[in-house]
Amino acid sequence: MTARRNKPNGIGMVPTIEWYGSHVRMIDQRKIPSRTDWYTCRGYRDVIKAIQKMVIRGAPAIGIAAGMGLALGAGSIRAKSFGSFMKKFERMGHEMLLARPTAVNLRWAVDRMAALARSMEGHSIEEIKAELRLESERMLNEDIEINKQIGENGEPLIPRGATILTHCNAGALATGGYGTALGVIRSAHRKGKKINVIADETRPWLQGLRLTAFELMREGIPVAVIADNAAGFLMRQKRIDLVITGADRIAANGDVANKIGTYQVAVLARTNKIPFYVAAPLSTIDPTIRNGDLIPVEERGAEEICIFRDRQVAPVGTQAINPAFDITPARYVSAIITEKGILRAPYKAAIKKILTAP
Amino acid sequence: MTARRNKPNGIGMVPTIEWYGSHVRMIDQRKIPSRTDWYTCRGYRDVIKAIQKMVIRGAPAIGIAAGMGLALGAGSIRAKSFGSFMKKFERMGHEMLLARPTAVNLRWAVDRMAALARSMEGHSIEEIKAELRLESERMLNEDIEINKQIGENGEPLIPRGATILTHCNAGALATGGYGTALGVIRSAHRKGKKINVIADETRPWLQGLRLTAFELMREGIPVAVIADNAAGFLMRQKRIDLVITGADRIAANGDVANKIGTYQVAVLARTNKIPFYVAAPLSTIDPTIRNGDLIPVEERGAEEICIFRDRQVAPVGTQAINPAFDITPARYVSAIITEKGILRAPYKAAIKKILTAP
Repeated sequence: MTARRNKPNGIGMVPTIEWYGSHVRMIDQRKIPSRTDWYTCRGYRDVIKAIQKMVIRGAPAIGIAAGMGLALGAGSIRAKSFGSFMKKFERMGHEMLLARPTAVNLRWAVDRMAALARSMEGHSIEEIKAELRLESERMLNEDIEINKQIGENGEPLIPRGATILTHCNAGALATGGYGTALGVIRSAHRKGKKINVIADETRPWLQGLRLTAFELMREGIPVAVIADNAAGFLMRQKRIDLVITGADRIAANGDVANKIGTYQVAVLARTNKIPFYVAAPLSTIDPTIRNGDLIPVEERGAEEICIFRDRQVAPVGTQAINPAFDITPARYVSAIITEKGILRAPYKAAIKKILTAP
Repeated sequence: MTARRNKPNGIGMVPTIEWYGSHVRMIDQRKIPSRTDWYTCRGYRDVIKAIQKMVIRGAPAIGIAAGMGLALGAGSIRAKSFGSFMKKFERMGHEMLLARPTAVNLRWAVDRMAALARSMEGHSIEEIKAELRLESERMLNEDIEINKQIGENGEPLIPRGATILTHCNAGALATGGYGTALGVIRSAHRKGKKINVIADETRPWLQGLRLTAFELMREGIPVAVIADNAAGFLMRQKRIDLVITGADRIAANGDVANKIGTYQVAVLARTNKIPFYVAAPLSTIDPTIRNGDLIPVEERGAEEICIFRDRQVAPVGTQAINPAFDITPARYVSAIITEKGILRAPYKAAIKKILTAP
């Protein structure tokens, strides 16, 4: 089934994820741009599978999916007592946490759902189930609002006429809608700043070539894709004015885990004296992790590199090393754009302050 | 037709290019590793087309192809006088020069063939034609010998047990045989140094994933491919000990034009305090070009990025910027390994000295 409706999620395009009756459905991001197919989840394990197989990806979107997945799971629990319900619900949460290791938003969502459920002791199981579903809807809507605020906060950093490099897809498809890095880009575009975007294609999964190009072209924002190999050359030629990416987890000291290749872009930006910005909601900050080297980095299968749409490209039996994320030390980050404002070095203090602010 | 013979070109594998009766044939590198098909050239324009379409690629291999192509072209010239022969031959040379702009070996080969022809004034046209063909065969055989010498000269730079990152394919397939960067790797392997290779897949054309993996696996040299995005992360994790690449043109000051992405690898190597070596024959050095920024960088079509084996991957109509090469400033180059020895900074003096040495 092909989704062609305009959704009121703030971006006039296909929604990333939504409730559909008693099911959760999401656009299958493995198939964009060739197709915009719905992927329907009837139970929480369908959602876990969707996260693992990257039907849905992007740290904030994974968080929302986990929330909706747990609400789905809660709906299926048969329990007579609150204690028995919570035991089963928390087990689902543990399972959900294992879907992917790097993006902290997954844990954030699981914790939020569990906290809500725990706070409802004394209510009926049916009330708790209904409230969990509502909570997952609030997570979606809040995320869109947060992204718009990130866009508004980051927009002043974008000079008129700037050419902006972005890596991976930190757009509407990576979030509830609007996007983090692409949210800033959207806001600058809507302010009439006449920006241009260069999108790293972002191997191996080609989020830039497939998803970022798709989103920006739909919105009429000028975009050109490049092989990831070309970013440094274009910077050296002064054809890129600044870089913005999203983040999958930010450590207490400001180190950033993000899509593999982000570290390289940050180093090249520094070498070429170009600002490197990270746009992310506060839910991406993990104050329990001291520095980036302690963030678990998922390693994915060789087939993502060696096989392309079911066709073997590498010699049969080729070994591959396929880390899905990398760590950018905080010293390479010019600023972190959040919904509550822009953080600057020293990040440890700035992060502490913003997380404890009222 | 599938080529499975072992050829005595020093590497016990498929030859890159060879004379086959009155034709020139080459392995079609667009199809490796799925197929090892011959691509047969009956005239010099077939060779130009093969170079443009990257049936054959790699700076030294392009040089040899140009030499053989011009010998093919010479064979087809109908001329009664030396002057008329030379006029036609030089016109072919001009056409050949336009096939691809960045690798200087193309010009080197055209100049060498033209100089030989010019030196034979007084000989019969048939003698000149025969000698041009012999010259192109000498170019092939010399190149293999040069590569072996590069390998021998570079091998002492490789520590026992080292893990070596290479970018693109600077191997047997990029040369007459044995390879430049992969020649050094072959020599270290044959010395029993127990090396491991990590090959950047090298988008958009995937020379690393397809060709370097193919060559090294055939020789039993341990190799793992990575997305180009992962090189920096692995360096930061201290999983790469050194980098070796080839070169398409080296300026008088030591700046290196090579496959797009090389500059990024060099910057990342410097940031992570890892040696970055370039292995190339002296024919790759262009003393007429003062610095790298004066080297013409070929821009290729968007389809190399947006279309994958006839399948549209990007949204239809996606713009792309596709520079095929980049420039690595000499300050990032730890050493240039040539057949006459190892050059170190200051490169301007070292290059001048080695090019004027007897």
